[in-house]
Amino acid sequence: MAIGILSTLLAKSETILGSGHSSVVSMNLFVALLCGCIVIGHLLEESRWMNESITALAIGLCTGIVILLTTGGKSSHLLVFSEDLFFNYLLPPIIFNAGFQVKKKQFFRNFMTIMLFGAVGTLISFAIISLGAIHFFKKMSIGNLKIGDYLAIGAIFSATDSVCTLQVLNQDDTPLLYSLVFGEGVVNDATAVVLFKAIQSFDLPHINTTIALQFVGNFLYLFISSTLLGVLAGLLSAYIIKKLYFGRHSTDREVALMILMAYLSYMLAEFFYLSAILTVFFCGIVMSHYTWHNVTESSRVTTKHAFATLSFVAEIFIFLYVGMDALDIEKWRVVSDSPGKSVGVSAILLGLILVGRAAFVFPLSSISNLTKKAPCDKIDFKQQVTIWWAGLMRGAVSMALAYNQFTSLGHTQLRGNAMMITSTITVVLFSTVVFGLMTKPLIRILLPSPKNRMLSSEPSTPKSLTVPLLTNGHDLEAYESDRNLITRPTSLRMFLSTPSNTVHYYWRKFDNAFMRPVFGGRGFVPFVPGSPIEQNDQQWQ
Amino acid sequence: MAIGILSTLLAKSETILGSGHSSVVSMNLFVALLCGCIVIGHLLEESRWMNESITALAIGLCTGIVILLTTGGKSSHLLVFSEDLFFNYLLPPIIFNAGFQVKKKQFFRNFMTIMLFGAVGTLISFAIISLGAIHFFKKMSIGNLKIGDYLAIGAIFSATDSVCTLQVLNQDDTPLLYSLVFGEGVVNDATAVVLFKAIQSFDLPHINTTIALQFVGNFLYLFISSTLLGVLAGLLSAYIIKKLYFGRHSTDREVALMILMAYLSYMLAEFFYLSAILTVFFCGIVMSHYTWHNVTESSRVTTKHAFATLSFVAEIFIFLYVGMDALDIEKWRVVSDSPGKSVGVSAILLGLILVGRAAFVFPLSSISNLTKKAPCDKIDFKQQVTIWWAGLMRGAVSMALAYNQFTSLGHTQLRGNAMMITSTITVVLFSTVVFGLMTKPLIRILLPSPKNRMLSSEPSTPKSLTVPLLTNGHDLEAYESDRNLITRPTSLRMFLSTPSNTVHYYWRKFDNAFMRPVFGGRGFVPFVPGSPIEQNDQQWQ
Repeated sequence: MAIGILSTLLAKSETILGSGHSSVVSMNLFVALLCGCIVIGHLLEESRWMNESITALAIGLCTGIVILLTTGGKSSHLLVFSEDLFFNYLLPPIIFNAGFQVKKKQFFRNFMTIMLFGAVGTLISFAIISLGAIHFFKKMSIGNLKIGDYLAIGAIFSATDSVCTLQVLNQDDTPLLYSLVFGEGVVNDATAVVLFKAIQSFDLPHINTTIALQFVGNFLYLFISSTLLGVLAGLLSAYIIKKLYFGRHSTDREVALMILMAYLSYMLAEFFYLSAILTVFFCGIVMSHYTWHNVTESSRVTTKHAFATLSFVAEIFIFLYVGMDALDIEKWRVVSDSPGKSVGVSAILLGLILVGRAAFVFPLSSISNLTKKAPCDKIDFKQQVTIWWAGLMRGAVSMALAYNQFTSLGHTQLRGNAMMITSTITVVLFSTVVFGLMTKPLIRILLPSPKNRMLSSEPSTPKSLTVPLLTNGHDLEAYESDRNLITRPTSLRMFLSTPSNTVHYYWRKFDNAFMRPVFGGRGFVPFVPGSPIEQNDQQWQ
Repeated sequence: MAIGILSTLLAKSETILGSGHSSVVSMNLFVALLCGCIVIGHLLEESRWMNESITALAIGLCTGIVILLTTGGKSSHLLVFSEDLFFNYLLPPIIFNAGFQVKKKQFFRNFMTIMLFGAVGTLISFAIISLGAIHFFKKMSIGNLKIGDYLAIGAIFSATDSVCTLQVLNQDDTPLLYSLVFGEGVVNDATAVVLFKAIQSFDLPHINTTIALQFVGNFLYLFISSTLLGVLAGLLSAYIIKKLYFGRHSTDREVALMILMAYLSYMLAEFFYLSAILTVFFCGIVMSHYTWHNVTESSRVTTKHAFATLSFVAEIFIFLYVGMDALDIEKWRVVSDSPGKSVGVSAILLGLILVGRAAFVFPLSSISNLTKKAPCDKIDFKQQVTIWWAGLMRGAVSMALAYNQFTSLGHTQLRGNAMMITSTITVVLFSTVVFGLMTKPLIRILLPSPKNRMLSSEPSTPKSLTVPLLTNGHDLEAYESDRNLITRPTSLRMFLSTPSNTVHYYWRKFDNAFMRPVFGGRGFVPFVPGSPIEQNDQQWQ
């Protein structure tokens, strides 16, 4: 249906394009394509191979071809890929929703492993890709790339895109794996962006120990202060909503305030040159732990689904756009005289990505396994392969960073820069489509049956059809963890063997004694009429 | 709290403004101000005088003053008022939500009166303001204004902004009045924009009968085709969601599809040069009648509140912006040598608005009363005064149209154009603040007690704290109208005396026999687990 509208639009766009009407045309086209992606994604839900990301990418590519043909090879892009659009509008809802919907217990239980993969792993991957790029590309004479460019390449191709894998993994069947892949994805995004910014701001050719230490210090400062800002923004929102009790007058104010405060945390982090990704992620976690419990029931349902929907649409938008942008003829013109070299560069990069990821997933998994006692907490070999595979795709973050590095000063006409842009597009398309298509079958082979069903009895949150309206994910999880808490300390052996549980135990004591009375949260919300959760919860305090 | 962040931001913005960072600064400021408006609006909820619009306007003005002082009188606006932003992003959610939340029964019951006020009334007001402007401004020699400019002034100042009044009126206490003011507001917006576009596109100095007829024909064409497009888009969304049964896999897809289809209808209307306001309004009505019933329960709650929140934020954003923009020093520079003339022009325009509105509200109310038999359907004098008052405020639509007419070709330096821009700002500020502040007390005097409680027992939809989650507004309304339908035909006298009920009766027959089986809607939805409404409804079919 949307395709029908699309062809009408395209027929008209030819005559109108270039006038002030052209933005209306491209918006129509984009919105219609988004609708098309959603409908087709729904129809392909049961498919063995496809998922929403690949569908959007494929539709974007097809649209690019159609536009290329109708405009006679002039231009395929109706919207110019803008970093502003990506980093200011599309990325925030995705990352915030990630924090908001994450199963906090699983996430913090595996926090050290996630940080190991996300931060240390990304640095290893960055080092291998940078060194590999220096080694291979210097021999190939592909234009004038500086040391900063090579390091930027390392950062660009360390930024994974685990959306495809997360769409396939089941949060209930494989909670450990899911939280690892998911958590690593977020920390990896943040690490790659922070690395990239650090590379751009430091005077790299004249590196010495002081600068290297500054680099590390800067990195740690960004990590810690970004996290703190996100936590503070989340707590502020919880405090305001609890104190002023917005639900008394209007649910809309609550929802609006949550969205705006989350967005404010992101923009404030940008303002202070911090890692906005980390900030908004932790803001999401804090909001789901405190703020979400302070609002009315309608607001809870609304925020939960509205955030998920925003994130969902932003994701499709990005893949659609990357698909359409890939066929922009201008980018390919400069490198069209040496297609072999372009393919070579992309192949080398893909190889480096494969090696760079293998070089940290398997060793770090072994290290992580050493610290775990319980066999269910260990990462077996099949799971290691899945984690390795999950981070092979490259996506919009890589694209945005590549555009920033290689087109920022307008010198795309330089051979080296043009080559890197087209190679990035090739790597993103190839990894998303080819690796992405193989994800579903691969995971079915590696993780054949619903196993590892450990703690969680929650239904999968993003598809909450069967969930009774309100006592969903968040409450169930907290409810269960409360129950576990009460029985756990009796078993001293288990208590000693899992130090992260000890931290968790003291955190919960602190949370119940100080944080929740001040910031609200389950069990400390003001009285909301008709809330059935109230009474059940109080008994656990 | 938000104010604290604001001052930090402002201190920094001085040093950074002008760099690429400035968009981040202004976004931070804006989001923080929005949060501030929401918090303050909440605190002033019980106030006798204030409402959210005036709060936002006042905060915007204060911010404008602070920026003016910190930048040393250079510039007060951080974001340039952009028609694109207003017409493409801020207006659609407001109008769509208006259609989505409207009490359809009351709206269609008073359809003829609403059209009388909204279309005919706006034309009368337009004629009086245009003629008055020609009469007075020609004598005052305020620059070189053409006949098209005078007609544009008529259209600009015919566009009312009834947000203030609607925030005060209670949908349950005065359903007739509410639906009249509300319906007129939407039709008036559409009429004013259509008029304005028609004036810009016709060659006005050489007017004759043919052109006048074309003008009328064009007007009718825009009205009918815009409505049809909106209805079609709504029906298409209902059909797709019913047929493909999205809820099976994901609630997010349903919500995303509803939002995107609504937005698509708006942009398609823009694309075909129709009245996008009318289109998206009727799309909202159709979606709430059919599509909304085809989605899962979570989606219903989410869409209802998400649309209301979007609309709410967009409204505050507009008032905030108008407030900040009003202090832009550049606009006032040209007219600063003759402040008396500027005040005179604004005063004349305010007088014309008062007269122009009185000239149609009272006569048209009498005409409307002639067609009604039941005394409760008649508009008494106090209600007429309320309707008159409700349309005296001018808002963002007037601003946007004035910018379009008087700054479009870059010749703001012309005295006449600069004068009209500053006068528009003055009229908008004065009418919103002064008339707006008097609205609450006035309505308390005119409509002192909860009277006129007739048909509706629904709780006020935008503040649905006390509403049990799902069987809210929409269903209750339909439920009641079904009950009325079954008893009504027995009373032949009443049946004959109210022809609109007859139309309503046949419409419902048609709706039940043909529309609902195809497009879903209450009683014809696919089976949704856990929906308690199902069984209750079937018995009325």
